[in-house]
Amino acid sequence: MKLVIAIDSFKGSMTSKEAGIAAAQGIRKVFPDADICIRPLADGGEGTVTAITEGMGGSFRTVTVIGPGGKPARCRYGILPAAHTAVIEMSGAAGITLVHGKEKNPLHTTTYGVGQVILDAISQGCRKFIVGIGGSATNDGGVGMLQALGFDFLDAAGDPVPYGAQGLSLLKTIDNAHVLPELKECTFRIACDVSNPLCGPEGCSAIFGPQKGADSEMIALMDPWLAHFASLAGKIYPDADPDYPGCGAAGGLGFAFRTFLNASLESGIKIVLEETHMEDYIKDADIILTGEGRLDAQTVMGKAPQGVAQMAKKYGKPVLAFSGCVTPDAVICNQSGIDAFFPILRSPVSLEEAMDSENAKANMSASVEQVFRVIKTFIVSAQ
Amino acid sequence: MKLVIAIDSFKGSMTSKEAGIAAAQGIRKVFPDADICIRPLADGGEGTVTAITEGMGGSFRTVTVIGPGGKPARCRYGILPAAHTAVIEMSGAAGITLVHGKEKNPLHTTTYGVGQVILDAISQGCRKFIVGIGGSATNDGGVGMLQALGFDFLDAAGDPVPYGAQGLSLLKTIDNAHVLPELKECTFRIACDVSNPLCGPEGCSAIFGPQKGADSEMIALMDPWLAHFASLAGKIYPDADPDYPGCGAAGGLGFAFRTFLNASLESGIKIVLEETHMEDYIKDADIILTGEGRLDAQTVMGKAPQGVAQMAKKYGKPVLAFSGCVTPDAVICNQSGIDAFFPILRSPVSLEEAMDSENAKANMSASVEQVFRVIKTFIVSAQ
Repeated sequence: MKLVIAIDSFKGSMTSKEAGIAAAQGIRKVFPDADICIRPLADGGEGTVTAITEGMGGSFRTVTVIGPGGKPARCRYGILPAAHTAVIEMSGAAGITLVHGKEKNPLHTTTYGVGQVILDAISQGCRKFIVGIGGSATNDGGVGMLQALGFDFLDAAGDPVPYGAQGLSLLKTIDNAHVLPELKECTFRIACDVSNPLCGPEGCSAIFGPQKGADSEMIALMDPWLAHFASLAGKIYPDADPDYPGCGAAGGLGFAFRTFLNASLESGIKIVLEETHMEDYIKDADIILTGEGRLDAQTVMGKAPQGVAQMAKKYGKPVLAFSGCVTPDAVICNQSGIDAFFPILRSPVSLEEAMDSENAKANMSASVEQVFRVIKTFIVSAQ
Repeated sequence: MKLVIAIDSFKGSMTSKEAGIAAAQGIRKVFPDADICIRPLADGGEGTVTAITEGMGGSFRTVTVIGPGGKPARCRYGILPAAHTAVIEMSGAAGITLVHGKEKNPLHTTTYGVGQVILDAISQGCRKFIVGIGGSATNDGGVGMLQALGFDFLDAAGDPVPYGAQGLSLLKTIDNAHVLPELKECTFRIACDVSNPLCGPEGCSAIFGPQKGADSEMIALMDPWLAHFASLAGKIYPDADPDYPGCGAAGGLGFAFRTFLNASLESGIKIVLEETHMEDYIKDADIILTGEGRLDAQTVMGKAPQGVAQMAKKYGKPVLAFSGCVTPDAVICNQSGIDAFFPILRSPVSLEEAMDSENAKANMSASVEQVFRVIKTFIVSAQ
């Protein structure tokens, strides 16, 4: 029996790899000779760096960069040396959890640190980049990141504009003459699961500004500043398209990646499945295990287990999902490729107890074991 | 597909029948045409009257009797009219939960009410009795019950001895001349899952006395009183055997039933399985569902789901168990006939939320549904 296990992290409880190892232990109690492949799974959001790096045999590297509020931030990212690939979560260098109180002000918060992480990865030999851009604290159009990479954003006096969205108000000239040369060799896949444009009523200022500390006055200022920035960018990069879906992701970082670094904006799960060669594993398997911390109606909206399930169904493979909890509306998953799903809880416990890492691993193993006992019982009785 | 569902009550949450109906709903979502038999399950303890009466199409009857402490008690029991059978839990008439504070004194607590329930059932036409004798408040050797049925227990002056163990200290004569004549037509199966003798260090006074309010002085008094009672009983009933396993159940009520009423003392699950004709159903089924509120290592020690599983295994049938919670040591159930077991929890909740009747039914249905989705998936893929 060949099995592929690809479970998303249970946030705050188990990494993708830990969940996979626990599930494999449960299977082996029933099928000791099972041929089990544990593959990383993530959706481009939190946990993506850990999942891919652990799961693909990469190594972690931590760099100190300028955080979104200007203070130093320690950002961990992953390197897959053989593939010359870096796996980065922008939130590690410019995330909303890195700013507090007054720092939470998109007029000033910058993506500069994201550029520093890319620089560091280039210095380590990386030329391919997988970047998750959820959870940002910024609305600077990605200008901070581009500054770190050598792009010049200058004011009327020819001086660099300051960090944050306010810098865009002073922007007169963009110059790419001093860009890091290695950038030409680099490709970027951006995990981006929002389709907002850069500007307008659905743009990043209006939609995501408030959660980053913007009031309506700031939004009214920032939105035209970003439009002005896009128009200047269009003079150098004729393909610049602020209306392209996802350009409004991460305060315009999506626009910066696409326009200045020729990045593709893609769904996180699509990138993860491709980069981890999931299809090669799935097509040879007899059973696919997937899961995530919480299985609900949202799961079918492009979350990681759903991506695995759809790929498995392309090959007609049975799919079982395991999760920390399930909601009543999770039954919709049964119509979208997840043949059956199981919460791993064993007894009434608090959320804290349920999420305890050791409890979660033991519960995963025990739950998977019993489901595979059913499979064993009914495969045998049907033969 | 033919299924038998026989789930013990989830105490304080679902009756056996409610659990069975909820499980059936889950199965029908996957196999709409399944041929499902919901059978009652109980172990002779709490929930037995409800399970058998509901599950066998009987009716409930409530009588007011003299409770163990002398106050009136309302006791509900079940009648299966066609079988002329009454189903009684002694705890309803003489249970420990009916006495409080100073009443909790085995020198005075009596089984008189148990005899009154039997009288009432006889008046309703019952001639077969299934009696669960767990949870008693008494240590009167069953003399109270026998008094209610017309046996005379007299002191030196020829007067009836008072209620409770203290009455035994005055006992000089036992006379069965005035016994209710219908008793001759009656048969009694006593669900008794302890093997203690009437007297001695393993007897009811020493072992169960303390939980009924006896201190060591009382125990030292009551034990020889019961021995004296047994010796007098032996003069009328030569088969009286105070050492017979189970005679010490319910403060000697086991001895009274066996000696005076020719009752059989049997394991609760054996009685329930036989009286509900479980074997006839199981041998024709494809899958057996069982369960109870809590599945743990105790389950294999003769609890109801274990009884179902062993019977199913006699015919090589697959057995799935569902429970409110499972403990890590429940894996031993997998070696004793339960092919796989599943807690019905869906998310981290308090014990109170988990036990809420509506939650429990919904969770049962949802859990069973997903397990049967696995069965459907793997039966199809194996064919």
